[in-house]
Amino acid sequence: MTSPLRLGIAGLGTVGTGVVKIVRQKANLLAERAGRPVVITAVSARSRDKDRGINIKDYAWEDDPVALAQRDDVDVFVELMGGSDGPAKAATEAAIAAGKDVVTANKALLAHHGHALAIAAETAGHVIRFEAAVAGGIPVIKALTEGLAGNEMTRVMGVMNGTCNYILTRMQSAGLPYADVFEEANQLGFLEADPNLDVGGIDAGHKLSLLAAIAFGVQVDFDAVELEGIGRITIEDIHQAADMGFRIKLLGVAQMTARGLEQRMSPCLVPDTSPLGQLEGGTNMCVLEGDAVEQIVLRGPGAGMGPTASAVMGDVMDIARGIRIPTFGRPAAGLEKAKPAKAATPAPYYLRMALEDKPGALAKIASVLGEAGVSIDRMRQYQHEETTAPVLIVTHKTTRDALDRALDAMSRLDVLHGAPVVLRIETV
Amino acid sequence: MTSPLRLGIAGLGTVGTGVVKIVRQKANLLAERAGRPVVITAVSARSRDKDRGINIKDYAWEDDPVALAQRDDVDVFVELMGGSDGPAKAATEAAIAAGKDVVTANKALLAHHGHALAIAAETAGHVIRFEAAVAGGIPVIKALTEGLAGNEMTRVMGVMNGTCNYILTRMQSAGLPYADVFEEANQLGFLEADPNLDVGGIDAGHKLSLLAAIAFGVQVDFDAVELEGIGRITIEDIHQAADMGFRIKLLGVAQMTARGLEQRMSPCLVPDTSPLGQLEGGTNMCVLEGDAVEQIVLRGPGAGMGPTASAVMGDVMDIARGIRIPTFGRPAAGLEKAKPAKAATPAPYYLRMALEDKPGALAKIASVLGEAGVSIDRMRQYQHEETTAPVLIVTHKTTRDALDRALDAMSRLDVLHGAPVVLRIETV
Repeated sequence: MTSPLRLGIAGLGTVGTGVVKIVRQKANLLAERAGRPVVITAVSARSRDKDRGINIKDYAWEDDPVALAQRDDVDVFVELMGGSDGPAKAATEAAIAAGKDVVTANKALLAHHGHALAIAAETAGHVIRFEAAVAGGIPVIKALTEGLAGNEMTRVMGVMNGTCNYILTRMQSAGLPYADVFEEANQLGFLEADPNLDVGGIDAGHKLSLLAAIAFGVQVDFDAVELEGIGRITIEDIHQAADMGFRIKLLGVAQMTARGLEQRMSPCLVPDTSPLGQLEGGTNMCVLEGDAVEQIVLRGPGAGMGPTASAVMGDVMDIARGIRIPTFGRPAAGLEKAKPAKAATPAPYYLRMALEDKPGALAKIASVLGEAGVSIDRMRQYQHEETTAPVLIVTHKTTRDALDRALDAMSRLDVLHGAPVVLRIETV
Repeated sequence: MTSPLRLGIAGLGTVGTGVVKIVRQKANLLAERAGRPVVITAVSARSRDKDRGINIKDYAWEDDPVALAQRDDVDVFVELMGGSDGPAKAATEAAIAAGKDVVTANKALLAHHGHALAIAAETAGHVIRFEAAVAGGIPVIKALTEGLAGNEMTRVMGVMNGTCNYILTRMQSAGLPYADVFEEANQLGFLEADPNLDVGGIDAGHKLSLLAAIAFGVQVDFDAVELEGIGRITIEDIHQAADMGFRIKLLGVAQMTARGLEQRMSPCLVPDTSPLGQLEGGTNMCVLEGDAVEQIVLRGPGAGMGPTASAVMGDVMDIARGIRIPTFGRPAAGLEKAKPAKAATPAPYYLRMALEDKPGALAKIASVLGEAGVSIDRMRQYQHEETTAPVLIVTHKTTRDALDRALDAMSRLDVLHGAPVVLRIETV
């Protein structure tokens, strides 16, 4: 197998430009490692003439990514356009129908349509690879699918949205409120056009659903991910957590339980001495737990031209070397949909609420928790100058069901101002 | 390719037993993931009758691992005996000659004979895989060889001997001297039969030489690794380093420089806030740096039945899935021997020495450093009750050559008691 592997690249934004640079600048190294040349034959993007600092004149041009995907001189369709539907989906489907392998960085596309696409690709005898879709430069898909293939996975976790981690760590280090740091992140260009993709946990949720599908051998099911963003986290929460030896992270957790598959992407408290707790800024981290390997932690840049292009090229090189593994690590046709289980694993929880400043309010809250079977580890009422009293409660380990019963009862007490902030304290 | 992959396992110690357990207990999972059954057909070990908590009666028995390696009903020879020569080498060579693929956990064998074995295997069209040889359960060989295949690697580093890291972190946390913790590690069974393999840095040096060969596309060359053990590290060094915000780690660093390939395994100072600095106990960590990916950090258990068997099974599953990559990521026949370069990259250094307690001694040391072009960042003389004065010097960034000139001149001054402890401060 020494014939060149021919890439057709759709999308020449940051990542696409990075891929072109690597293929051009490292032709010899890639050929030596793959045992065959890796070349680009055709490209497609919104604008042909934009100055990207790369020479694309050597490559055939297609205005339409679908046409690119169908070209006879393309072996691998490299989809770097993004978007869960529209051109990315159409072109990926066209590529599979035309008998191409696919490499994509598109987490939204795979989180929503990954199962159907995998079925189509595997039926046609082709592969879809997506290392760049999860945690940027970290080769986590490879580690999970291949390196840990001898394990029954027990839990996967990750901080996989660099923007949210930037915001949370910056709030802590600069002592700034959420709104200010959000605006700062916006100015720095860290936020997606729809910021809710970042701060609402959607982007990270896409990634979690992909990891969960591989880890637990089930159909990718993004709709079953319990999503909660970081928008309600205050600087007070961050300080309170720090006082108790915790950091707040937008943490994804997927775990197979007796009740079904738990997939959560939500702000959680983690010990400040743990690798997750120590993760600063835009860096990503994935934690993979299996019955044999115990725990592996992978850390690296979650975005950026170089790291994401590195992940894309890892997939391209695998295909060049003849590595052909089902998209989700097992034949897609055999994957079933998991029963979703909402936060099935018990944990301690952090609750912050604003109470009416009147006698007995705190007692009523404590009583309601007790009635629901939720026991209190710590409770603290702050000094305040307003008519509501800020109260912090840390529970002992409890089920989310019991906690929800308590929260429901609290909401009917008429002593709360607004809904409490509820953060799980995750054992990492 | 749905015929079973048939393993012959030589060595039924901790790792071998772990592999047998996984293959027996997870037959369905492995078959689902690999697309074919993975089975054991034959085993070999020192004692047939030892109770290992596993049933080996279903497998053919061979007293001689060479005979096992040559059996017709074995596709993959799994070498878990250990030792750089003797039966492990003979059986591995026999397996390759008999047309088998090889999976091994044997870092010593590959560090010494990896190039010749890779040439033999590749000439015969077979593969040697060795994930379990480096950093236990961490899939670092896979990450480096495959996941980062689009990168020109710039540096690889690792804390890859759990025993040394246990000793160093335990000295710090318990405030105990080296000798006491060494004895404690011995009692706990953490040390190899020849403890110098651990505390002399040899075991970790084997691993570093394997990572370096892959990262920089050169012949594995363990003899070129500059080795220094942890035996001279005192509790005083650990406290002094901590005072300045550092931790002492037995750190491997490989880096290609204009002067040649630098491979060092030695105790170094690393910032206590870095992932390497925060690594406690027997856990391993590998840091992979490439021009595209920037920096990836992998953390996990460096030893133990489950983690090491997990790494072995990752290789077995790769072979079952048809993944066939040259041993060191590029055809071995094309690999050249790198020119070794001793600590070519400049760095600050930590020096601790015992000076004659007489006027002018410190001035002489300072003067000798200045003459060699080594400038001093901090210098500190301690209170003491002995006739020698402990002195600590931290230099500004300097070449090792310049420092060695200074050390040589110092040795002729007649004011030093013994050779200084010299620790590099590594930028991580």
